Amino acid sequence: MPKTKCLMDIGVIGLGVMGKNLALNIADNGYRIAAFDIDDDKTNSVVDQSLQEQVAFSTLDSKQRVFGSQSIEDMLNQLSSPKIIVLSVPAGKPVDGVCQALIHAGIGENDIVIDTGNSLWTDTVEREARYHGQFIFFSSAVSGGEVGARFGPSLMPSGSIKAWERISPVWEAIAAKVDPNTGLPIERTKPGDRVDHGEPCTTYIGDTGSGHYVKMVHNGIEYADMQLICEAYHILNDGCGFSAKEIGQTFERWNNGRLNSYLMEISADILQQDDPETGKPLVEMILDKAGQKGTGLWTAVSSLQIGAPAPTIAEAVSARAVSNQKALRQQLSQKLCGPVVNELSDSEKENVVSSLENALYCAKICCYAQGFQLMDMAASEHGWKLNFAEIAKIWRAGCIIRATFLQSITQAYQQDPELPHLLLSQNFAQELSDLQKDWRSASVFAISNGIPIPCISSALSYYDNFRSQILPANLLQGQRDFFGAHTYQRQDKPEGEKFHLEWSSMDRKQIKL
Amino acid sequence: MPKTKCLMDIGVIGLGVMGKNLALNIADNGYRIAAFDIDDDKTNSVVDQSLQEQVAFSTLDSKQRVFGSQSIEDMLNQLSSPKIIVLSVPAGKPVDGVCQALIHAGIGENDIVIDTGNSLWTDTVEREARYHGQFIFFSSAVSGGEVGARFGPSLMPSGSIKAWERISPVWEAIAAKVDPNTGLPIERTKPGDRVDHGEPCTTYIGDTGSGHYVKMVHNGIEYADMQLICEAYHILNDGCGFSAKEIGQTFERWNNGRLNSYLMEISADILQQDDPETGKPLVEMILDKAGQKGTGLWTAVSSLQIGAPAPTIAEAVSARAVSNQKALRQQLSQKLCGPVVNELSDSEKENVVSSLENALYCAKICCYAQGFQLMDMAASEHGWKLNFAEIAKIWRAGCIIRATFLQSITQAYQQDPELPHLLLSQNFAQELSDLQKDWRSASVFAISNGIPIPCISSALSYYDNFRSQILPANLLQGQRDFFGAHTYQRQDKPEGEKFHLEWSSMDRKQIKL
Repeated sequence: MPKTKCLMDIGVIGLGVMGKNLALNIADNGYRIAAFDIDDDKTNSVVDQSLQEQVAFSTLDSKQRVFGSQSIEDMLNQLSSPKIIVLSVPAGKPVDGVCQALIHAGIGENDIVIDTGNSLWTDTVEREARYHGQFIFFSSAVSGGEVGARFGPSLMPSGSIKAWERISPVWEAIAAKVDPNTGLPIERTKPGDRVDHGEPCTTYIGDTGSGHYVKMVHNGIEYADMQLICEAYHILNDGCGFSAKEIGQTFERWNNGRLNSYLMEISADILQQDDPETGKPLVEMILDKAGQKGTGLWTAVSSLQIGAPAPTIAEAVSARAVSNQKALRQQLSQKLCGPVVNELSDSEKENVVSSLENALYCAKICCYAQGFQLMDMAASEHGWKLNFAEIAKIWRAGCIIRATFLQSITQAYQQDPELPHLLLSQNFAQELSDLQKDWRSASVFAISNGIPIPCISSALSYYDNFRSQILPANLLQGQRDFFGAHTYQRQDKPEGEKFHLEWSSMDRKQIKL
Repeated sequence: MPKTKCLMDIGVIGLGVMGKNLALNIADNGYRIAAFDIDDDKTNSVVDQSLQEQVAFSTLDSKQRVFGSQSIEDMLNQLSSPKIIVLSVPAGKPVDGVCQALIHAGIGENDIVIDTGNSLWTDTVEREARYHGQFIFFSSAVSGGEVGARFGPSLMPSGSIKAWERISPVWEAIAAKVDPNTGLPIERTKPGDRVDHGEPCTTYIGDTGSGHYVKMVHNGIEYADMQLICEAYHILNDGCGFSAKEIGQTFERWNNGRLNSYLMEISADILQQDDPETGKPLVEMILDKAGQKGTGLWTAVSSLQIGAPAPTIAEAVSARAVSNQKALRQQLSQKLCGPVVNELSDSEKENVVSSLENALYCAKICCYAQGFQLMDMAASEHGWKLNFAEIAKIWRAGCIIRATFLQSITQAYQQDPELPHLLLSQNFAQELSDLQKDWRSASVFAISNGIPIPCISSALSYYDNFRSQILPANLLQGQRDFFGAHTYQRQDKPEGEKFHLEWSSMDRKQIKL
């Protein structure tokens, strides 16, 4: 009897940084949470934090909202049916481990399990099929890091549309919100806050797997975006001799312009942060070896497999790999010479700063263009119907790559939902055409000064490649026909007609195949 | 009785361009061939060609060497036991189709089937296990295109060492040969020629799958090498206004210097080839859409997955993908502006040509360095023992990427078999250090003139990345810790110690985890 007395609305399994914050966010929005982690301390910690926040913030009423579960069985008993359970465990085997435990504990076929981890989208597709009839496996990618999870993430749900109908009120409540008039995020920064107006940063993405795919591409763009900012830091640091603090201030200024974005904002902050231990700039004490969890490389792999060029995302993944080989870099730095670098005058430095600001913006647009084309081609391949205006909209707030110019992307796709490529939109084409000169100057400066710019230069070649009516791939097809008889097509013949030149014969006749 | 009368030595299944030429090559070396293709015409064609060649070339005796098989059963009856069967069918399902047919036709457990196609190396590993006990599945990648297959390819065998002992006499006979004193290929260009001296371009690579992996990386390097040459063509064409013929002549000159290679040689030839139909340069009539068969993308994917940076190979794969989107490029070329380009004086053009020659050489070395490091890291991951001096040796002739400077790579690995990275070798480090200035000039020229150089600039950033003792990945780790609590390590603390700054708290304490 007591078991049915005060049933909970939603279960949360996995109370790491993301799971804990999602639980508190859902609780803030009036839902009663049953929370479980295999680590009891984590379970107790989220219950405590919720209670403390209720005391500290007067916006919250005094009713307890987050309750600990002793076990998965216990959680199922605590929840009202049909149940909704949010999963926040590491991608891969742990997801299936919990699913099996839920089946063992008697989860029902109408109960919904929402995987919010960074799962590989093909795993998601397999899981939906595998658990069909035992429970409804639904997935919703989450972006926004710990702060986003707590106060409003960007949520990319996909799977059963019927499940979505049950989940959507919760998801729309906890998601970040955007002011539809300005396209800017509506602030929500303290426990107990709720935002009931504005456009929620969540939308049903499509069939199973598509939400995680879209999130994967989001992360791929994020990799490139982060690397671009790092390259700008490198140029300003090594090329202009600016201190970390000065660069932080420059980034702060840039963040008020067209480069306004969350990543620019936090980079400005990080660069101005002193190390609590030594008093030096913290960034200079951080080891320059970048970690990664896989989503960036999955994006690069998918782009290669689908044939949707996203070279700048691949360069960002490779740059992290190079950063990791620090011992080798130290050896090589003793052997490989660079250019002689001259000291710059103040006005020369100013020129670098202003051209670099535009270079960064141009390169960034190209990374987004790569990501959106990749989603477009993946959608064709997998039979998904993706709404790019909606996707750009839900990335305007909550997620890591949120940036003012996502409003422009939204508008570009609203004006033409079938836009074949982002750079075809009048707005971006004009901006890039106007700014490409600065992009080139900044690249030339970096290259002349021996500063690596894998992403800035990759994006520029991407731009120049797509500007080219004729690419030297004609020679490449000639090579392929020469050594492998792979045939070529002709500029003056209908596409599809194949020709081969008899390169190794004396008279080199052309054969039509 | 008559069946046992004149048994054949080796079977060849699949008589496309590669299979036919391999069969003729093996026959030239004194082996009697049973040849089969599901297309009777192809079977008859190879038998006819063999007979015609015997008539036309006095070096051949008059005994028939290539016999057609009516079916796979027929072939098994024609061959002496234990049998050796060479498979040259498209990678993927056809390989398994033939294997099943061989089992059905009664192949014996000591018979060897050698897959010579461009199979994905993981498929090879699976196949060896799958067919164990039914026959010996062995693999040997083949490089050299149709001419190589006919007159001496580079062969990369891997799998059962016992099988290799039986195969090696044939493989060493048909492989390309190198003069050990000069490191140069020994010519063999007409039917009936045999080369019994020199170092054969084949060596046992290692356990199952490793040969196809090494060949895959060979092809990845090939993709980058081809794209680099195309970028040089693009620069000389668009940036200097040279005609195809002039560029062909320039390449011919380059081919006498440090850039000497098969790909440079054929590019010079192709660029000077007139179109038989219009009389214009053929290259200008070839459609600029590049095809691909997968090995380049597999290499790029593997590099991303293993964390062995090969960004320039990935750029080459992406460049092919961009070339394929020609309709989109045509639309974008109307909208996206480039720089205003000035006419060059003759001496300026000369400067471009000479700096570009060195740029191409530097970029090429970096692509090889990427490929060799990838093989090295893959070997660690998969438990293979690869001998890089031997691999460089067997790439000196026969294969598509054969080039004079593979002799220098061979020497670098002979001097230090444990060399952690090619650029650490004194020879290459010195050359790159001497030439990097020209590499930068050529890149700056291309970028300033709006010419895409995805691979030249990617390789330069790779070089500058590895020259960097400190990379801006410190900021990147700061970003990751800021938004995702992913922690960072410190320059002044032992590696492995992890720290997190409480970015969202007021006092921003650093926590050691």
